[in-house]
Amino acid sequence: MELPEIQPLKIQRYAKILSLGKGLPENVLTNQDIIDRYQIRATDRAVKYSLGIEERRWAKPEDTVEDLMKKAVQDCLDKAQIPFEKIDRILVARLVGDYNLPPSSIGILHKMASQKGIPAFDITSACSGFLHAMDLAIRYIDSGDDLVLVVGGGITTRAIQDWNVIDTKTIFSFGDALVAMLLGCDDQKHFFASYILTNSLLYDTALIPLGSSLLKNNNKDISWDMFNMRISDPKGIAASTIEYTKAIAGKLLKETGLSIEEISYFITSDQSSLLWEAQCAAIGIPKEKSMSLFHQYGNTIAAMPILNLNGLVESGKLQRDQWVMLMAHGAGASSAGMILKY
Amino acid sequence: MELPEIQPLKIQRYAKILSLGKGLPENVLTNQDIIDRYQIRATDRAVKYSLGIEERRWAKPEDTVEDLMKKAVQDCLDKAQIPFEKIDRILVARLVGDYNLPPSSIGILHKMASQKGIPAFDITSACSGFLHAMDLAIRYIDSGDDLVLVVGGGITTRAIQDWNVIDTKTIFSFGDALVAMLLGCDDQKHFFASYILTNSLLYDTALIPLGSSLLKNNNKDISWDMFNMRISDPKGIAASTIEYTKAIAGKLLKETGLSIEEISYFITSDQSSLLWEAQCAAIGIPKEKSMSLFHQYGNTIAAMPILNLNGLVESGKLQRDQWVMLMAHGAGASSAGMILKY
Repeated sequence: MELPEIQPLKIQRYAKILSLGKGLPENVLTNQDIIDRYQIRATDRAVKYSLGIEERRWAKPEDTVEDLMKKAVQDCLDKAQIPFEKIDRILVARLVGDYNLPPSSIGILHKMASQKGIPAFDITSACSGFLHAMDLAIRYIDSGDDLVLVVGGGITTRAIQDWNVIDTKTIFSFGDALVAMLLGCDDQKHFFASYILTNSLLYDTALIPLGSSLLKNNNKDISWDMFNMRISDPKGIAASTIEYTKAIAGKLLKETGLSIEEISYFITSDQSSLLWEAQCAAIGIPKEKSMSLFHQYGNTIAAMPILNLNGLVESGKLQRDQWVMLMAHGAGASSAGMILKY
Repeated sequence: MELPEIQPLKIQRYAKILSLGKGLPENVLTNQDIIDRYQIRATDRAVKYSLGIEERRWAKPEDTVEDLMKKAVQDCLDKAQIPFEKIDRILVARLVGDYNLPPSSIGILHKMASQKGIPAFDITSACSGFLHAMDLAIRYIDSGDDLVLVVGGGITTRAIQDWNVIDTKTIFSFGDALVAMLLGCDDQKHFFASYILTNSLLYDTALIPLGSSLLKNNNKDISWDMFNMRISDPKGIAASTIEYTKAIAGKLLKETGLSIEEISYFITSDQSSLLWEAQCAAIGIPKEKSMSLFHQYGNTIAAMPILNLNGLVESGKLQRDQWVMLMAHGAGASSAGMILKY
């Protein structure tokens, strides 16, 4: 697979991250809770050892994607002290929303009881979706917007594993979370490079069949198990993640003229603790210059890198004007990276 | 609902429509075919009178969204005589793809057997989605891309009405179509104004429940009818369409300083022949300065305005450098408009 060249960001108006927010379900499930619930032959210790996960948020039936988005948005706007109706545009990186239509972005406007017709749409790009949306937000701010709100994540546990047939390979990995980021306009440059690639050879490594391929079978038997997410090649996904982490880091560093030593923090999607460590090792970043909350939240799809970024900010580790390399890898088929001065 | 102000497009690198393409299923269904197939108490004449539709494309079980996308993309690239791997970015405006994951945009790369990892993602915004994606493409070209491919539409008949319980209000309205547009970079300015609004008060006028709201019911009975698109307020959608056509036209004309008389062609989403005529009348555009192919294709969601634009181009009516007002209204909750010099 030939990787596209990195293109310089031809930008005159500069975007800046103003604030982050999170919207998590209250309900916490430990490994033991899952073992008991689904009567799985496993131990907490073995799960911790193989995946690194200890617990995850697990939405209750009364939780909705839109309510959790509202929580994340309010947290984010409270921190920036900016009222909702000042926002110029809303972008949602979703995998599965409450519905297919209306989009989740319209759901946010609905939940916030907005009296203003703010432009809004959803994008679909699995785990790398939030970075796609950030890349968009930078360009919207360049071409006129003052404030862009990006929201991502979802209720993944419900969409992929809460069925009759339990997939023990994935049942422990996923968790539910929504995150939000407000981007504004600034005099200083913050985003120095942005790069996105896809690999259509990995097209069928992960599948959620909610679509017209499923619907054409409407004269056949139907069961809830038909909706299960199918990950056919977890090893292929992991291998491509390492390969692309190296390739993207190389392109971002070359574009910015920075060395890896100048990067204060490396943030990425951490689909397991091992995969996080392997990404750090692949580009020569010590773990102390990164953060993974996988042990606490699991794989939260598009929310992963932003939960980690938020962890760095909340812990006081990441300071303004430090260099951050941000990355995300989506089910093998799409990866994205940025270098920004926070 | 307060409408956002129109913002000037702060753009230095100019986008231009290079070519259009279409990917239609071969299978044509007349009104009489549908009447016979579903044993509906209706006549072809009554359907023609009330909706304006005569026939529509109706995907066969072997047709896939991705195959039709490929057809549209090849048609589009053949016209521009540009090879696929020169494209910098692919944006797909989808409502329901073959799958939820992988995205349809990755599906195009897969179908084209691409050896290059071209950045690509899907956006979800019903009938106005193609204009959202065009608005994005303009900004991507401004900030560095040379060639952006936009694809939209879908196999809607399968997603919304091919079930056991037939909704006679919608069964005649929809058709299947995919369209493609290639945008490139040009010395001359072509896009003079772009405007998008949403109305979250119309949040639940149209629903496709494929999402986690449905999945949480996984311990309950399941039937194919659960997937039916539900249009709860067609009159509300129609009324908002007329209202927003006027409002958007006003904002676009004010921003460009043009009068409605200077617009050579008005192109919009035509969810019925009556609604097309009403939109033309609302802004004082004679029908001769517009085109509706609703009678031939029905409601093809995001593909509608582009099928009409393509009709104007193929018929030789629309010439380069003529002013076009392009608009699309999506299920009431999202509308978009542009003024461009074709």
